Amino acid sequence: MNSITNTPIGVIHSPFTDPADTPIQSIFADGARGAVEVFPEYAAGLKDIDGFSHLILIYHFHLAEGYSLISKPFIGDIEKGIFSIRHPRRPNPIGISIVRLKNVRGNILEICDVDILDGTPLLDIKPFVHQFDQRADIKSGWVDDQHIDEVKDKTPRALKGSLSKC
Amino acid sequence: MNSITNTPIGVIHSPFTDPADTPIQSIFADGARGAVEVFPEYAAGLKDIDGFSHLILIYHFHLAEGYSLISKPFIGDIEKGIFSIRHPRRPNPIGISIVRLKNVRGNILEICDVDILDGTPLLDIKPFVHQFDQRADIKSGWVDDQHIDEVKDKTPRALKGSLSKC
Repeated sequence: MNSITNTPIGVIHSPFTDPADTPIQSIFADGARGAVEVFPEYAAGLKDIDGFSHLILIYHFHLAEGYSLISKPFIGDIEKGIFSIRHPRRPNPIGISIVRLKNVRGNILEICDVDILDGTPLLDIKPFVHQFDQRADIKSGWVDDQHIDEVKDKTPRALKGSLSKC
Repeated sequence: MNSITNTPIGVIHSPFTDPADTPIQSIFADGARGAVEVFPEYAAGLKDIDGFSHLILIYHFHLAEGYSLISKPFIGDIEKGIFSIRHPRRPNPIGISIVRLKNVRGNILEICDVDILDGTPLLDIKPFVHQFDQRADIKSGWVDDQHIDEVKDKTPRALKGSLSKC
C-alpha cells in the first residue's frame, strides 16, 4: 500500500533529553512542565483550545530506530507484541500523550505531565473530550497484572530532581 | 521541517462507505461491527492483544482533501479551531478511535463501535490502558456546552437500519 507523508506542525519542548530519563507515561510524569510550539502558519487552528483542560498530542518518535514486533514493555520483563505495548520502536513510530493544558500564549501551549523527549516533532493536537474519550469496564490485559504503584518507584531521576513542575 | 513518511500496517473494514452516514465518534457508534485487517508481515505484533477490551486505532483519513484551520464541528454550528475539534480536514489527516475488541482471528481483529470509513489505512494500534488513559477533572471546552444527548438524534441513517451490531 502506498506510503503516507505528514509534515510536522510544530515541536514539543521538554526537560527530557535522554530517553532513559523520560517518564514512561504522562500519568506518571508528576506535573513535569513542557511547551508545545505550533508553527506560526498553523497557529490559527488553536482557536478555542484554551477551553480544554487536557489535550491529546500525536507526535513522531524521532529517535526510534527501526522496529521490533515483539518487545519488552518498560514496566515488565516479559516480551509482548508491539501492538499490546506503548514502546516507541513500532512499525510506524507514532506516539500519543494526554497532557494537561495550563496556558496558551499565541502559538505556544504551556503543558503539564509531559512524557515526551525535547525536540519531538508534533503531528497533530486533538482536544481530550470526556464525552468521547472515557470508557467504563476496561480490561487492560497484561497491564492489569502489574503493580502500577511500583511503577512510580521507577520514576526517572530527572523527576526526583529540581525540575519545574505544575 | 522534514516530512515524515509512514506505511499502512493494515486496513479497516466497516459498514460505512459514505462519510455523511458514518458515526462521528465511536462512543456514538452503537456497537457497529467492523474488522481490522493487519497485514500478515505485522501480525506477530498482535501477540497478547486479546487481553485488552479496548484498542486505540490510529489511521489515515484517506478521503480528507486539504485542510482548514477553522471549521465547523459535526455537533455544532459555530466554527472552531481545527485543534479544538476532531474534524478530518486537518493539516495532518490522522484519526484516532477507541474501539472495543471482540475477537482475534489470526491477523483479523473483530471490533465494535466502529466510526471509521471502510477501506481506511491503519497506521498503528495501541492498547487502551485504563491506568494510563483515564483522567479526572476534565474540562472539555465548547463540547461541555453541547447537549450530548441530542447528538444521538443525529445518529446516521445506517445505524438505524439493519446493521450488524455487537
